Amino acid sequence: MSIVTNKQKIHELLTRGVDEVIDCEHLKKQLESGKKLRVKLGIDPTSPHLHLGRSVPLLKLRDFQELGHKVVFIVGDFTGVIGDTSDKESERPMLAAKVVKENLKTYIQQVGKIIDVKKAEIHYNSTWLGKLKYTDIAEQANMFSLAEFIARDNIRNRLSAGTRVSLREILYPLMQGYDSVATAADVEVGGTDQRFNLLAGRSLQPHFGGAAQDIIMNPLVEGTDGRKMSSSWGNTINFTDEPQDMFGKVMSIADDLIVKYFEYFTRIPMADVRGIAKRLSSGGNPRDEKMKLAHEIVCMYHSKKDADRAQEHFISVFSKKEKPDDMPSVKAVGKSIVDVLVAAKIASSKSDARRLIEQGGVQIDDVVVKDAETPVKRGSVIQKGKRFFMKVA
Amino acid sequence: MSIVTNKQKIHELLTRGVDEVIDCEHLKKQLESGKKLRVKLGIDPTSPHLHLGRSVPLLKLRDFQELGHKVVFIVGDFTGVIGDTSDKESERPMLAAKVVKENLKTYIQQVGKIIDVKKAEIHYNSTWLGKLKYTDIAEQANMFSLAEFIARDNIRNRLSAGTRVSLREILYPLMQGYDSVATAADVEVGGTDQRFNLLAGRSLQPHFGGAAQDIIMNPLVEGTDGRKMSSSWGNTINFTDEPQDMFGKVMSIADDLIVKYFEYFTRIPMADVRGIAKRLSSGGNPRDEKMKLAHEIVCMYHSKKDADRAQEHFISVFSKKEKPDDMPSVKAVGKSIVDVLVAAKIASSKSDARRLIEQGGVQIDDVVVKDAETPVKRGSVIQKGKRFFMKVA
Repeated sequence: MSIVTNKQKIHELLTRGVDEVIDCEHLKKQLESGKKLRVKLGIDPTSPHLHLGRSVPLLKLRDFQELGHKVVFIVGDFTGVIGDTSDKESERPMLAAKVVKENLKTYIQQVGKIIDVKKAEIHYNSTWLGKLKYTDIAEQANMFSLAEFIARDNIRNRLSAGTRVSLREILYPLMQGYDSVATAADVEVGGTDQRFNLLAGRSLQPHFGGAAQDIIMNPLVEGTDGRKMSSSWGNTINFTDEPQDMFGKVMSIADDLIVKYFEYFTRIPMADVRGIAKRLSSGGNPRDEKMKLAHEIVCMYHSKKDADRAQEHFISVFSKKEKPDDMPSVKAVGKSIVDVLVAAKIASSKSDARRLIEQGGVQIDDVVVKDAETPVKRGSVIQKGKRFFMKVA
Repeated sequence: MSIVTNKQKIHELLTRGVDEVIDCEHLKKQLESGKKLRVKLGIDPTSPHLHLGRSVPLLKLRDFQELGHKVVFIVGDFTGVIGDTSDKESERPMLAAKVVKENLKTYIQQVGKIIDVKKAEIHYNSTWLGKLKYTDIAEQANMFSLAEFIARDNIRNRLSAGTRVSLREILYPLMQGYDSVATAADVEVGGTDQRFNLLAGRSLQPHFGGAAQDIIMNPLVEGTDGRKMSSSWGNTINFTDEPQDMFGKVMSIADDLIVKYFEYFTRIPMADVRGIAKRLSSGGNPRDEKMKLAHEIVCMYHSKKDADRAQEHFISVFSKKEKPDDMPSVKAVGKSIVDVLVAAKIASSKSDARRLIEQGGVQIDDVVVKDAETPVKRGSVIQKGKRFFMKVA
């Protein structure tokens, strides 16, 4: 496949979902030269699920792939054990190798929802990092100064707050940098929180006789609760979420995230995204745009059919306030609601069930339950929160 | 050999040439228990010569050895390459492995001037450090905080002065600490500048299932120019210095170092050392005491015979202002003094020779030379500085 050097496409590659490019002029020239570039992204399997935050650099890889470049995807099976704290307010524990191994079982399959895995190079960084000796590591460490490390915002903040920073954390950037050496990356893609780690590659490559990679940094996007989307905070929308759940989660985001989600998480043409932004700023109904967004995202990770059904479900339950057709049932005639909630595993314990009821989160046949001992009747519909329904059989 | 538990000897072991002991109470109990302790000292072969500064911990090892304990001497062939900067105002370069290998050729022989090498364990730390993998190193790094590292005086000073501290330097204490793990040290001996490195062993050993070592720290002693004795500054008295040179160097130290040198660099009984201190403070002639000191030190590294001859030489040259009998000769009749200095390799170049002359450092037959072109005559004695003499043949 020949390399696409269309200026408009290169412009979008360098701007859509991009916060900063180093060195932008150099990378632009490289892209226009028609040379086939090696474009690297590494992800540590610190959780079994990839979330939409990860899709931003992955979609960028796909953009490169569509222009004919070589995608180099690195599974951080080694770095995952060590643990990166670039985006953290505190240390993260070292993971057991077997947890990482378990987590990465379906990683390639998940990544394959965005990039063409067959055309990409897939590497596990234990391949080379596992072979390095103490002297190699010291030689690499020699090229970085302590001052640059402690000048990083998150490290400086933690040091001045008296929060522990372990010496282990210092080794992480060296590892990520060495990944770029080992794979001869021309470009690395990563989040703005990875700035130091990404620059490490630029420092190390020339020492090993290679050219310094260019860097494309993507912004970090907010999750369903408005904080940065992160597995640590349970506010993620995951590649593996079921269609209905994924649709519902997208519908729950704040209205001011709609345009951002369209730009970063989808490849709806930017002209259309700008149209959506315009409609919203001139009084358009955010719910309609959000519905399009949710439909598009479910399409990307499942199918159009799944997206259609999830949308119908959402409309029937939330928009029309109807209950879904296919709710699960529970055999619980005559039992008290508190026992039913526990038996059906809706609550984890009796006290959890009581708390749900006290907070007004449980309804029987559209009436909020106030007494935890209320008995349930055959045919009643128990509702928890906005979206969970169960029939008493 | 059974263990000596004499209280007076234990007291001297814990106090003579000692600045701090951690944990003193624990170590005292260990020594009194009659248990055979493993006492570790590591020295990096960053220079081919050991100097008297190194003799302070080595004499401490000998004290332990005389009480029946096991000396564990570590040749830092691995750590020497990485380089410790605990006592430095700046980074030190990584050494080539072959330089370290060359330096350590006569190390054991030199160490053998103080300790009984046949009764000691000798280890090269490349044996274990060379086998560690990245994950081992990260696991160990995890046990140290960045805050403790940058709180060290020399690191804090360098950081605030904007002097580069490399990440490599952070790895050094881990290595020294792991040496204690690998050798199951009960006690480690080292300079006060090594505090952080010595404590690293205490942190790491329990993690690997061992007991935390006790630590004996010796003070750093000034060299011939009054600054801390260090190979980097050329102010050392080396184990391998020739008797006359060694004697002369000791005679050149400041008077207020005499008692310190007796306490730290010799094993003249402390009662005698206190007597010397008393004589000096009540108007005794420092030259006489210094002569005893120089004689004792030459005895330790050479022989009584060598010490006697060096003393005679010193007295004849400096005290009685006589010239030595066995001076070298140079064939240079009729040449100018500047050319003779270069030909006899006393000066490295003509300009070096001119500078020596300008500074008044050259005499012919006891007259300071002022004119570089002064011709020399047969039978004249050329003198450079205080101690170098040469006859014109």
